[in-house]
Amino acid sequence: MKKQIGVVLSGCGVYDGSEIHESVLTLLTIDQLGAEAICMAPDVELEEIDHLTGRLTGIKRNVLVESARIARGRIRDIASVKVSDLDAIIFPGGFGAAKNLSNFATNGVDAIIDPEVSRLLRGMAAEKKPIGAICIAPVLIAATLGRDYSPCLTIGTDTDVASAILSTGSRHSSCAVTGSVVDQENKIITTPAYMLAERISEISEGITKTVRALLELTEAK
Amino acid sequence: MKKQIGVVLSGCGVYDGSEIHESVLTLLTIDQLGAEAICMAPDVELEEIDHLTGRLTGIKRNVLVESARIARGRIRDIASVKVSDLDAIIFPGGFGAAKNLSNFATNGVDAIIDPEVSRLLRGMAAEKKPIGAICIAPVLIAATLGRDYSPCLTIGTDTDVASAILSTGSRHSSCAVTGSVVDQENKIITTPAYMLAERISEISEGITKTVRALLELTEAK
Repeated sequence: MKKQIGVVLSGCGVYDGSEIHESVLTLLTIDQLGAEAICMAPDVELEEIDHLTGRLTGIKRNVLVESARIARGRIRDIASVKVSDLDAIIFPGGFGAAKNLSNFATNGVDAIIDPEVSRLLRGMAAEKKPIGAICIAPVLIAATLGRDYSPCLTIGTDTDVASAILSTGSRHSSCAVTGSVVDQENKIITTPAYMLAERISEISEGITKTVRALLELTEAK
Repeated sequence: MKKQIGVVLSGCGVYDGSEIHESVLTLLTIDQLGAEAICMAPDVELEEIDHLTGRLTGIKRNVLVESARIARGRIRDIASVKVSDLDAIIFPGGFGAAKNLSNFATNGVDAIIDPEVSRLLRGMAAEKKPIGAICIAPVLIAATLGRDYSPCLTIGTDTDVASAILSTGSRHSSCAVTGSVVDQENKIITTPAYMLAERISEISEGITKTVRALLELTEAK
């Protein structure tokens, strides 16, 4: 049986959902390393942003339905996914992580996390199952697990977001775009991706390392 | 100066636009090989399909605006792109190629091709600049260039689409999912991708070979 890796999506597009390149390269590496991706997303609304102009359109879309574009239709409502279904979980970035899986974009350190995201993060951590997060998505881990686990995370070199992470009780380690930060004790792996990247080949390197470490930690005691 | 590779998108999602995995892996390989992607799409409407249910919603979206999601906002209206701007051009697949860049999905061999797509395809062929196409997108080449150039193309092993390609005066060569077909004389490269693939790692192999051959042919006499 292949390792089952949860991939939590938040829409389809960097400005109002999951960053598409980060999501696809996560799925690619999971498959290349012989594991199986279990795509999931919450069945909630998002505020559409026109990706040509960068402006809000006033139209609502559905996070699960839009995420299904990246998953080619093979996706589950996150509410139906149990910790026991998964060997590990990973969160691609994009503003959707900060707007649809949480309200970090508006509330910063006081962010409310989607209850299903919070349930899975707490459950995975309690069972010592590996957790990965890309780009801005480490703020979900910080806000949910910071106080209890003091995880070591990276969002690259952004001092404002790093400060927000520190204020949750988490630690922050600066990291180059092609690297990743592995918190061995908590089995948490993070990489900056488009928090720093100018080019898709840069995020490919960091995401490959992150997914590889995630899978290796599924074997660790 | 980096080689300038046109990437023609047709929306964002396999059922009503560009296949997202194919598009992202095309952009990745172009960047990894040191070239520059020039993303473009036509400023026309598409009929939205819910990717969770596979059903038409009755809502219209804009092909250029949706394609901008894959391009992270860096995209041009195809009408503004000249043959002289490009060293090569490539078309990812997805139903958008058969519904938004043409009406092959409904009209088959009698398909009408988007006039800007047709203009660029004829112009690139006339200047002997390389052309690539992925998945179902080779039908655009067949319909536009079949009679004048008799290109050798692949869409994998689908006999119905292969027959349609043959009826345009093009040739068809069956091909495994991880391979590509190179028509050296016409500088045209095609790969089956999700016409055959079950896994994203399979399309990655075929697309890497296709983009590599495309770039090599920019150097060929």
